[in-house]
Amino acid sequence: MADDLNCDLKSLSPLQLFERVTEQGEKVRALKAGKAPKDEIDAAVRTLLSLKLSYKTTTGQDYRAGLPPKDLVLINNGTTKEEDEDLVDPWNVQTSNAKGVDYDKLIVRFGSSKIDTDLINRIERATGQKPHHFLRRGIFFSHRDMDQILDAYENKKSFYLYTGRGPSSQAMHVGHLIPFMFTKWLQEVFDVPLVIQLTDDEKYLWKDMTVEKAYEYAKENAKDIIACGFDINKTFIFSDLDYLGASPGFYKNIVKVQKHVTFNQVKGIFGFTDSDCIGKISFPAIQAAPSFSSSFPQIFNGKENIQCLIPCAIDQDPYFRMTRDVAPRIGQPKPALLHSVFFPALQGAQTKMSASDPNSSIFLTDTPKQIKTKINKHAFSGGRDTIEEHRKYGGNCDVDVSFMYLTFFLEDDDRLEQLKQAYTSGELLTGELKKVLIETMQPLVAAHQERRKQVTDEVVKQFMTPRKLAFEF
Amino acid sequence: MADDLNCDLKSLSPLQLFERVTEQGEKVRALKAGKAPKDEIDAAVRTLLSLKLSYKTTTGQDYRAGLPPKDLVLINNGTTKEEDEDLVDPWNVQTSNAKGVDYDKLIVRFGSSKIDTDLINRIERATGQKPHHFLRRGIFFSHRDMDQILDAYENKKSFYLYTGRGPSSQAMHVGHLIPFMFTKWLQEVFDVPLVIQLTDDEKYLWKDMTVEKAYEYAKENAKDIIACGFDINKTFIFSDLDYLGASPGFYKNIVKVQKHVTFNQVKGIFGFTDSDCIGKISFPAIQAAPSFSSSFPQIFNGKENIQCLIPCAIDQDPYFRMTRDVAPRIGQPKPALLHSVFFPALQGAQTKMSASDPNSSIFLTDTPKQIKTKINKHAFSGGRDTIEEHRKYGGNCDVDVSFMYLTFFLEDDDRLEQLKQAYTSGELLTGELKKVLIETMQPLVAAHQERRKQVTDEVVKQFMTPRKLAFEF
Repeated sequence: MADDLNCDLKSLSPLQLFERVTEQGEKVRALKAGKAPKDEIDAAVRTLLSLKLSYKTTTGQDYRAGLPPKDLVLINNGTTKEEDEDLVDPWNVQTSNAKGVDYDKLIVRFGSSKIDTDLINRIERATGQKPHHFLRRGIFFSHRDMDQILDAYENKKSFYLYTGRGPSSQAMHVGHLIPFMFTKWLQEVFDVPLVIQLTDDEKYLWKDMTVEKAYEYAKENAKDIIACGFDINKTFIFSDLDYLGASPGFYKNIVKVQKHVTFNQVKGIFGFTDSDCIGKISFPAIQAAPSFSSSFPQIFNGKENIQCLIPCAIDQDPYFRMTRDVAPRIGQPKPALLHSVFFPALQGAQTKMSASDPNSSIFLTDTPKQIKTKINKHAFSGGRDTIEEHRKYGGNCDVDVSFMYLTFFLEDDDRLEQLKQAYTSGELLTGELKKVLIETMQPLVAAHQERRKQVTDEVVKQFMTPRKLAFEF
Repeated sequence: MADDLNCDLKSLSPLQLFERVTEQGEKVRALKAGKAPKDEIDAAVRTLLSLKLSYKTTTGQDYRAGLPPKDLVLINNGTTKEEDEDLVDPWNVQTSNAKGVDYDKLIVRFGSSKIDTDLINRIERATGQKPHHFLRRGIFFSHRDMDQILDAYENKKSFYLYTGRGPSSQAMHVGHLIPFMFTKWLQEVFDVPLVIQLTDDEKYLWKDMTVEKAYEYAKENAKDIIACGFDINKTFIFSDLDYLGASPGFYKNIVKVQKHVTFNQVKGIFGFTDSDCIGKISFPAIQAAPSFSSSFPQIFNGKENIQCLIPCAIDQDPYFRMTRDVAPRIGQPKPALLHSVFFPALQGAQTKMSASDPNSSIFLTDTPKQIKTKINKHAFSGGRDTIEEHRKYGGNCDVDVSFMYLTFFLEDDDRLEQLKQAYTSGELLTGELKKVLIETMQPLVAAHQERRKQVTDEVVKQFMTPRKLAFEF
């Protein structure tokens, strides 16, 4: 038994080991309480001691009941949230702070690393390109293993990009573009292939929606994504409902992940309950599997173990913490990540934009007039109550949503700095700042609409056809 | 809220309604205990009353805490087992009775119907063929909705057959042939198409086995299945690991089932726990989905809602009780079922044969000598301790495994009856009865081996290729 046990334990993560020790402890207590035969109790205690030793060897920490290993604390975000912490998971983003979520705290809580000046400089050196303003301005602010991606890249070892979207409705808003705009830039400067997952199955499972509707939204959303300008020869977009039935490798990776994640784990990571449907419970494996290149035998010409880099909003990190926990146990490389902040709602940075509230968002289908009205009417202002006070004390860029939006969409650094100073000093009024935002967003959205019109059903079909991408690894 | 609620409740099964009432009751108690505001408690009580009313409308029973609806009791086999009951679920068959499981009790507990003389006569009339000896001898003893299958068949409305196997090892034993021998007969006399699922993903999830090994076993097992003589033009055999990535319809049905079954439900039906991996938890949907013809668009030429009939051993029934619970809620017809008894181990009918104990089984790869030795050495005898006693009191066919095996494999009714009388009277000795069994099994296994040799990899590939089957609906 002991030999079997040790052999078995080697494949366990700290999280799983912690659970094994806890279970064995309960077993010993139950045996003692039930006055079991002495040799049975002794055997159980021996197993417990052996488990505790393995735990210490693996984690470098002593086992302490009720105190999960560091990795577990990191994984277990939603449920271990303290009173004053921001709520951040794939379905909720909520903070009491008007400046928005405290991202430095989030980095500590999630156990990721800050994207600092050194890393940005390395990216500039590796690509020979000026870093994207999302990097320069801390919009992509956190990462996992991006340094390893760069190490390998500098040694001529390339990678592929993976990002995605849950197609919950036909209409996308400008916030949805952030990861795609950045991913497009990454694709260009690193010259790498890209896979984009549309989780229509997730939307079917979570929403009151038919399979057909979810798939229709996926194809509609694909048009907006394609309109961002991805290279058709290096980009594969797929709907889960479609591609799962068309790939010999995708399901195999899904079932491998599903074998190595317990209900206890997804309960801890995602907060699932016993009343949740089994589709939700097993879904995380479907978002995990595209992190492994063998899910795309057609795309990568059968090549396996290609390193993956995932640009996404930080709320998607729980999926990939889980993926990174499983990867080594199924013989796959851990995906690296680049995390963005949330795009704030017009009403303020306490929550992220939502497609279900039309006034919280500027939609990609909005007319210039709608954009103007929404910004003037709903954009939360950091300005003062009266012109006199504003001139005297100045506005607050930290909570002003118009200014926040400009940090996302106004590429000119000097102009942005000018606006900041003028607004803070009181020289620039809220109405004037909003006007700059309106004049920035109107042509941006109009140009998107123009490009989207060019995206025919035939083009969508091409992007969504599994095929070898133009890249050799 | 109340309107939403009512609308929402219509789509719930009795099982789900029961859970909703229970949850709401707990909520009311929590509110009262927490001294919540009166209007909040009142609102929760109103919802509770409304839920209880829906429960009564749907089930025809008053809600009683802790007493699930009749449907739930039926579904909930493993966990509600009483002390003297046989244990029967997809992974365990255990009874304390040497005669084997009490099948009449099982019919009552599972809520299925007995296959009686009337039904057997109807099958004879509908097909114009003498009923298979598995029907005549009560080996297929229980059914769900077989009468409806016959009603439709008599009105020229056909159906398809679905059965399967979990490929846990390369070697199959003679007990594994029972459902296939019977399914082959059904295919011939009703002239219908057949799909055979090899759940290699299940075996990967449950056993210490690689994906590659599980798939290899699936292909090896397919050879033994094909050797039973299925019509290649009307039979599709598929491995889950393979076909899930090759069918546009299969995953869609899986995700539909997964949306409509909660963890609470699979916990009740299959006894899963929080420590089980999410793959096991969601697997039942994968065994459910082939019950719906839209899982096979290539096979049935895109035709949906074709009625399905599933011949299987009774231990697989929990999967299909779940499937039948879900079917109407996803707009699909409920599959009908024909249940067989278990094939006993050589050592006695207390448990079913197992591929993991070589001496409990006659394998399809055994030599004539191995068959002879195993039967002589291990087949549990209902004979007396001495020849004298045997001659005087006679043997007991009810517990004699050699006699049981002959009921499965000796087709000649008169001969079987003769043997029974001679053994019971003491005229026939145990050694003589075993000799008859040896002489029955040796040519049967040899013939199987001969047919299996003819099954080339090419033939397996043909059976496993998704293609239109030769049948018009």
